[in-house]
Amino acid sequence: MKFFFFPIVTIALFFTTISTAQTREKDSTMLRQLYNTALTDGKAYEWLDYLSNTIGGRLSGSYEAELAVKYTEEELNKLGLDKVWLQPVMVPKWTRGFKEYAYIESPTGEKHITNIVALGGSVPTPNLGIKAQVVEVQNFKELATLGEENIAGKIVFFNRPMQPKHIHTGHAYGEAADQRFAGAAQAAKYGAVGAIVRSLSLKIDNEPHTGAMSYGDTPDSQRIPAAAISTKDANYLSGLLKLQPEVQFYFKQNCKIWDDVLSYNVIGEITGSVYPDKFMVVGAHLDSWDNGDGSHDDGAGVTQSMEVLRMFKKLNYKPQHTIRVVLFMNEENGLRGGLKYAEEIKRKNEDHIFALESDSGGFTPRGFSFETNDANLKHIRAWAPLFEPYFIHLFAEGYSGADIRPMKGNINVLAGLQPDSQRYFDIHHSANDTFDQINKRELELGAATMAGLVYLIDTYGVK
Amino acid sequence: MKFFFFPIVTIALFFTTISTAQTREKDSTMLRQLYNTALTDGKAYEWLDYLSNTIGGRLSGSYEAELAVKYTEEELNKLGLDKVWLQPVMVPKWTRGFKEYAYIESPTGEKHITNIVALGGSVPTPNLGIKAQVVEVQNFKELATLGEENIAGKIVFFNRPMQPKHIHTGHAYGEAADQRFAGAAQAAKYGAVGAIVRSLSLKIDNEPHTGAMSYGDTPDSQRIPAAAISTKDANYLSGLLKLQPEVQFYFKQNCKIWDDVLSYNVIGEITGSVYPDKFMVVGAHLDSWDNGDGSHDDGAGVTQSMEVLRMFKKLNYKPQHTIRVVLFMNEENGLRGGLKYAEEIKRKNEDHIFALESDSGGFTPRGFSFETNDANLKHIRAWAPLFEPYFIHLFAEGYSGADIRPMKGNINVLAGLQPDSQRYFDIHHSANDTFDQINKRELELGAATMAGLVYLIDTYGVK
Repeated sequence: MKFFFFPIVTIALFFTTISTAQTREKDSTMLRQLYNTALTDGKAYEWLDYLSNTIGGRLSGSYEAELAVKYTEEELNKLGLDKVWLQPVMVPKWTRGFKEYAYIESPTGEKHITNIVALGGSVPTPNLGIKAQVVEVQNFKELATLGEENIAGKIVFFNRPMQPKHIHTGHAYGEAADQRFAGAAQAAKYGAVGAIVRSLSLKIDNEPHTGAMSYGDTPDSQRIPAAAISTKDANYLSGLLKLQPEVQFYFKQNCKIWDDVLSYNVIGEITGSVYPDKFMVVGAHLDSWDNGDGSHDDGAGVTQSMEVLRMFKKLNYKPQHTIRVVLFMNEENGLRGGLKYAEEIKRKNEDHIFALESDSGGFTPRGFSFETNDANLKHIRAWAPLFEPYFIHLFAEGYSGADIRPMKGNINVLAGLQPDSQRYFDIHHSANDTFDQINKRELELGAATMAGLVYLIDTYGVK
Repeated sequence: MKFFFFPIVTIALFFTTISTAQTREKDSTMLRQLYNTALTDGKAYEWLDYLSNTIGGRLSGSYEAELAVKYTEEELNKLGLDKVWLQPVMVPKWTRGFKEYAYIESPTGEKHITNIVALGGSVPTPNLGIKAQVVEVQNFKELATLGEENIAGKIVFFNRPMQPKHIHTGHAYGEAADQRFAGAAQAAKYGAVGAIVRSLSLKIDNEPHTGAMSYGDTPDSQRIPAAAISTKDANYLSGLLKLQPEVQFYFKQNCKIWDDVLSYNVIGEITGSVYPDKFMVVGAHLDSWDNGDGSHDDGAGVTQSMEVLRMFKKLNYKPQHTIRVVLFMNEENGLRGGLKYAEEIKRKNEDHIFALESDSGGFTPRGFSFETNDANLKHIRAWAPLFEPYFIHLFAEGYSGADIRPMKGNINVLAGLQPDSQRYFDIHHSANDTFDQINKRELELGAATMAGLVYLIDTYGVK
C-alpha cells in the first residue's frame, strides 16, 4: 500500500436520546480528550512493561503476586486519588513445581516427547510419573458410554477441538472449556489414572495452555493428575492412536496445593462530587498464570483500568459518582477477590450502579458486552454515535467479567470491554502471553474506550 | 480470563431495502457458508506461506516477482476458472544493491551506526558515500524558509512524525508521506546533497521503512540520494542535533535504476451466467518491497482475492456477472499494472460495475471504504445487518485502493477492504513485514468479508 489519499468518513448517525447539540458537543470533546490523552500521553504501556517484564507471571499466593499488589498500590498512590487501600482476601496457593515432562511411547518402545503443562489445581503425579494406555474421547457423554470397563487404569485424553467457525473466539472457548475444568473429575469416576486435555487454542502449535480445573466433590484419594497438551501434540497423539491403540502416555508433574494465604484486592477511588455514596467500578484481575507473564491476561486490563482514573485526574475531570479502580486478586484459580469485593459492598450496603471489567486481552477495542436490563441497554446504545469516530461499534448483550459478576443482583449495569478476539486464545494461559504480544496503541485505545463509557455513565446515570 | 459463559448477542437491526424474508434467509445462508469455508477449509494462509516463505519479497522486475507471477497463474489454473491469463505490462526495475550503511559522526569523531534503508527509486550515493552536516526540518515550508544559504552542501533530515492521535493509522500515514515521496526533490532545489527521512511508523524501534519516492522533474544531474532512517535513530539524531549542531551524517547506498522490463498482471475469471459482459474485479498487488517478504503488503490481499474466487467455485456459486481476480504488478514503485488494466478495459470497452481491493494488511476486517455515488452507498449500507454477525461494521466513504483507482470514471463502485489499522504501519515496507506477523483467522475473515460483498453486489447489482 502506497498512500491513503483521504481519510475515512464514517456514517453519520443521529442521537436518539441525548437532546441538545450543546450536550453532544461537550461529550464528544471529552471523548476526544480521553483518546488524545491515551494515545499521546498514556501510561498503561509503561505500567504493563513493569508488571510483565520486571515482575512477571503473578499466580495467586506467589511472591510475584505480592510484588504486583505492592507495585500497583504505589502507582495508584502517585495519581492523587482520594483514597487507595488494600482489601485483604485469603487466596488458594498452588505451585507448579518442576517443569512437567511427558512422552508418548509406541508399543515398540519409541518415545515422542510431548509438550504439556499441568492444569492449575491439579494434584501431582507420583514421583516417578504415570504411564498408561490412552483412551481418547470428545466429551463426557462418550466417556460415560465407554464406562469403567474401558477407562479404569487408563489415561483419558479429552480432544474436542475449539471450533474455528465461530467468529468470536470466546464462543469457541466456552464450548470446549468443560474438558479442562471438569475432565479430570469426570474421568476419575470411571477409574482413570490421569487426564490429558487438548489445549484450548485455535492455533496448531507446540505451546500447551494451562487454566483452572476443579475436582468438585471427588474424594482426595480419587483425585487424578491433569495436564494440557499442545494442539500439535494432541493431533499427533490422536493420529497415532488410530494406528496403534496400544500406545502409552507418560507424564510427570510435581505441583502442590498449599494452605490458603493472605493476599489483597488493590483499590483506589475518586470520590464523587455529587453522589459520593453511589459507586462505579472499573477493574481487572491482578493475578495471572505463572507460565507466561500475563500481559494480555490480565495485565492489559489492570493497566487500562488504572489509566481510566489517571486520565480523569490528568484532565481534571470531577466525577459525580465515586469511581473506583479495583484490581482483583485470584481470578484465575479461585475468584476469591471478586467474591470478597461483592461480599464487602453488600456488608457495607454500598450502592453500586456500574462495573466494567477488561479481561479479554489488550487488543483493539470493538465495544462492550452488557449484563443489564433492556432500559439500560437502550440508554447506553444511544451513545453509540459518540464512539463511532473511534471505530467502537459493539454494544451487545453478553458476558461482562468474572470478577464483577459476583455483584450481579446488587448493581444496575455490568459491562465487559470487548476487544478483537482473534488472537487472544493463541496465547491465553500459555508461555506466549508475553509483553511482546502487546501493541501499544491497541492497549491505549482500550483504556480510552473504557474511560469514555465510564464518563458517559457518570454523566447520564443508569436506569 | 477464565470463561465466556454465554456468547455475544449483537444488536438486531432491520433490513431497509431487501424486501422479503426469503431473500434475507438466502443471503445470510450464503454469507455463513463463505465464512465457514474460509475459516474451516481456507486456502489463503497456505498460499501466503508459499508466496512469503518460498518466494519472498517481490519487487517489480525481480526474479521473485516473476516467480510470483508464475506461481499465482498456476494456482489460479487449478481452481477451474473459466479463463486465466497474463496481461503484459512494462515495469520499472530498481535494485537496492548492497545493504546500506550509515552513521552519525560527532564533532569529536565518535561514530553512531544508524539503521537506514534506501527509498525505492533513489539514486546511489557516490562509491565512497556522502558525509555532510545535517539540517533537520519538519516540512517543505520550513525547508523553503531556510533556503539555499542554509541547505546547500548539507543533508536534509525530514523528521515530522506520524501523529498518534489519529485513530485510523492510515490518516497519520497520509499526513506524513510527502516527506518520503518528494523530500529529496524538494531538498535538491536548495542544493542539498542527500535526504534522510524519518520512517513512516508510529512505533519507536530500530527498523527503517522504505517506500516509493519521486524526483519529479529534477534534472538527472541534480538528483540526490534518499534513505529512510528508523524512528529510534531519528529521535537520537534529532536530540543530538540540539546539543551538537555540527554533527555529520554519513551514508552509502548503491541502488540502481535499470531499463524497464516486461512483467504481467495475473488475471482469472468466472464468466457471468446472466451478464457475461458486465465485470466485477477483486484484486490486490502481487509486487512488494524487497526488504521484507511482503506478507501484509500485499501478499495478504493477493491470497484473499484468489480465495474469493476459489470459494465461489467450491460452493458452486454461479455469479450473474463476470467476476475477475486481478493480481496487479508494480503498485509499489510505479502503479503500471493498475494503469495498464484500466487502459485495457477502456480500449476493449469492457463494462466494469465494481472493483474491490485489499491492500491495507491482512488484519481483522472491519468493513469497507467506498468511492461511489450516494445512491450506491445507501444501497450497499442496507446490507450492513447481514455482516453484523461477523463484526463487520464499517461502510464508509473513503479511499478504495491504488491499483483500482485508475478505473475511476469508468466504473460504478470502487471499494477497499478496511482491516484493523493499528499494527499495519509498525511493519509496513520494513523487514518486519513477514509471514509470522500474519494471523491465520484474521486473513481468512478478510477473504470471507470480501466474498460476501462481491456476492451481494453480484446479486443486487449497483446503481
